[in-house]
Amino acid sequence: MSNTTTGQVIKCTAAVAWEAGKPLVMEEVEVAPPQAGEVRLKILFTSLCHTDVYFWEAKGQTPLFPRIFGHEAGGIVESVGEGVTHLTPGDHALLVFTGECGDCPHCMSEESNMCDLLRINTDRGVMINDNQSRFSIKGQPIHHFVGTSTFSEYTVVHAGCVAKINPDAPLDKVCILSCGICTGLGATINVAKPKPGSSVAIFGLGAVGLAAAEGARISGASRIIGVDLVSSRFELAKKFGVNEFVNPKDHNKPVQQVIAEMTNGGVDRAVECTGSIQAMISAFECVHDGWGVAVLVGVPNKDDAFKTHPMNLLNERTLKGTFYGNYKPRTDLPNVVEKYMKGELELEKFITHSIPFSEINKAFDYMLKGESIRCIIRMEE
Amino acid sequence: MSNTTTGQVIKCTAAVAWEAGKPLVMEEVEVAPPQAGEVRLKILFTSLCHTDVYFWEAKGQTPLFPRIFGHEAGGIVESVGEGVTHLTPGDHALLVFTGECGDCPHCMSEESNMCDLLRINTDRGVMINDNQSRFSIKGQPIHHFVGTSTFSEYTVVHAGCVAKINPDAPLDKVCILSCGICTGLGATINVAKPKPGSSVAIFGLGAVGLAAAEGARISGASRIIGVDLVSSRFELAKKFGVNEFVNPKDHNKPVQQVIAEMTNGGVDRAVECTGSIQAMISAFECVHDGWGVAVLVGVPNKDDAFKTHPMNLLNERTLKGTFYGNYKPRTDLPNVVEKYMKGELELEKFITHSIPFSEINKAFDYMLKGESIRCIIRMEE
Repeated sequence: MSNTTTGQVIKCTAAVAWEAGKPLVMEEVEVAPPQAGEVRLKILFTSLCHTDVYFWEAKGQTPLFPRIFGHEAGGIVESVGEGVTHLTPGDHALLVFTGECGDCPHCMSEESNMCDLLRINTDRGVMINDNQSRFSIKGQPIHHFVGTSTFSEYTVVHAGCVAKINPDAPLDKVCILSCGICTGLGATINVAKPKPGSSVAIFGLGAVGLAAAEGARISGASRIIGVDLVSSRFELAKKFGVNEFVNPKDHNKPVQQVIAEMTNGGVDRAVECTGSIQAMISAFECVHDGWGVAVLVGVPNKDDAFKTHPMNLLNERTLKGTFYGNYKPRTDLPNVVEKYMKGELELEKFITHSIPFSEINKAFDYMLKGESIRCIIRMEE
Repeated sequence: MSNTTTGQVIKCTAAVAWEAGKPLVMEEVEVAPPQAGEVRLKILFTSLCHTDVYFWEAKGQTPLFPRIFGHEAGGIVESVGEGVTHLTPGDHALLVFTGECGDCPHCMSEESNMCDLLRINTDRGVMINDNQSRFSIKGQPIHHFVGTSTFSEYTVVHAGCVAKINPDAPLDKVCILSCGICTGLGATINVAKPKPGSSVAIFGLGAVGLAAAEGARISGASRIIGVDLVSSRFELAKKFGVNEFVNPKDHNKPVQQVIAEMTNGGVDRAVECTGSIQAMISAFECVHDGWGVAVLVGVPNKDDAFKTHPMNLLNERTLKGTFYGNYKPRTDLPNVVEKYMKGELELEKFITHSIPFSEINKAFDYMLKGESIRCIIRMEE
């Protein structure tokens, strides 16, 4: 199967960030054909994640503009570059900000998904093949973002960042599996691995934390304790299986102690989804000795130090971190999609908004105001 | 089967520590019969472990004297108290400083061996049944040590601290499984779980570290890197599978960096057996991202803080601690003994000395001079 566009530059619309923190501008961009090992896709649905907003605000990072953001998306393969064998034009696919080359020690390891070649790189605004961008406006290159740049009708990505999925899966739902939802879900299902009937504390009830709670619900945990500084989040979190709530501000002792008292010595598992170093330490110290496992998900500040008394470890607690929920994008995402298709994983409840591509800046507003979990951006209307 | 001594006070010889740091004195002691849930055993072989020396020196702890030390031993059940069903007079057994009551949440958990009832308590010098000692000299009670007090021809212990083993197993060898050897062995086999062909770093080449190396050898690790401040220990460690050596003093960069450079990014597993907080941090930071697991075994100082950048965790490293190698004494020790009987586990190489009971103070000298790994004390000659 081949399109008339194969091998040609495609002109299409993209939402371009020209400056940090300024509204995206709809522009006509030229999208070059995929080179060896690359794929060009037509994006059908994309969603906004905090990481887009974070790098768009560029408060802590080296600013890289103009840039096309976007890294949660579902689309259809338009054409493939030389040597790409696992994808064919017409395939339905999810794009992922981290990849799976299949050949490096991480890809060969059963335990890791941190591909040496395609591991996330937020500072790189070009393709790794030739250090060039595939996007341009009247000859001016526009930077890529984490190898995906899905806020464009067409995009070019490394084939290792493309997961082929069941063509029957609705892309307007499963597109949210590209980042935040899998990050939280996998942190619980793949890393914390709570047993049926166990107790799980979830620190932070944003999108990732709610996905971690969903993972605990799917795993059959019976006590899912949400921990958040905003008490109003508990109501929403109930939909995701959270059935107890602790606001650290409501107590005059450390939250780990509050949780230990609620659970006869500690929870079986804790998943930290805030990035606050204090929450990380509390999440670790609130798990039960003998068998407790704490999983860190949130990204900390550069100068943070995780600090605990080593006896907390020697008393047989485990501390782990995860990246993208330990999912290998190409290998594992098709199965996560099937979990949704079978009704085990509920995605609809994460989707609070849906807007046409032309109104993409609204998605930023919803997120900045804390109104959305996920806002779907429809590319075709 | 019943002995003529059943229900009677037994007079026998014990090595009594009257004062901190002073040579033990051979005394005739009276050993009361076991109460409900207790067992009286005739000790045949015992060995000296650092923990005995540590509490005998009593430099950091509340001194508790007079006391009968000793917690690595094999013996024969002389009589059992009311309600003891898993042991019968004549059974061959190992005594353990931590127990397995069988009923608490830890005993019920597959993952923990930190029994709520019988977890090690170094401050208690009495039996938990009645808060009394079973040892006395002319009416003066002599304190127990960690519930075992094996430097006596007869001792009384809680039945949950007694593992019945194969009667064909030579007690003069398997007695060393009661503490240090299982601690190191299990840290590797049960907790670090290296795969065949993998790389393992062992921090500290004392008895526990050598046992951790033995665990790596049994697991089929191909690179076993010993890390110690005393280079001469490498030669001996080779017998235990250690095939590479790093002395942190020989390098002007952190040892975790030296190891990462030797191993293309880090070892697959690390086991820390020194108790030094710096070694703990190095052991964690020298494991490979994506899949590395570090296991802490050594007991730290009270005021130590384990400190690392949380990104080291988020890059999919795991940090765990272990207590007694995660072995459940009653459930697991019989199988460790069988591993020795089948020739998989080599115990002879840990045994550097053997002395009669009357010369027990020599065992302390050997250990304080760093000459011994394990010194067997023969009770019957």
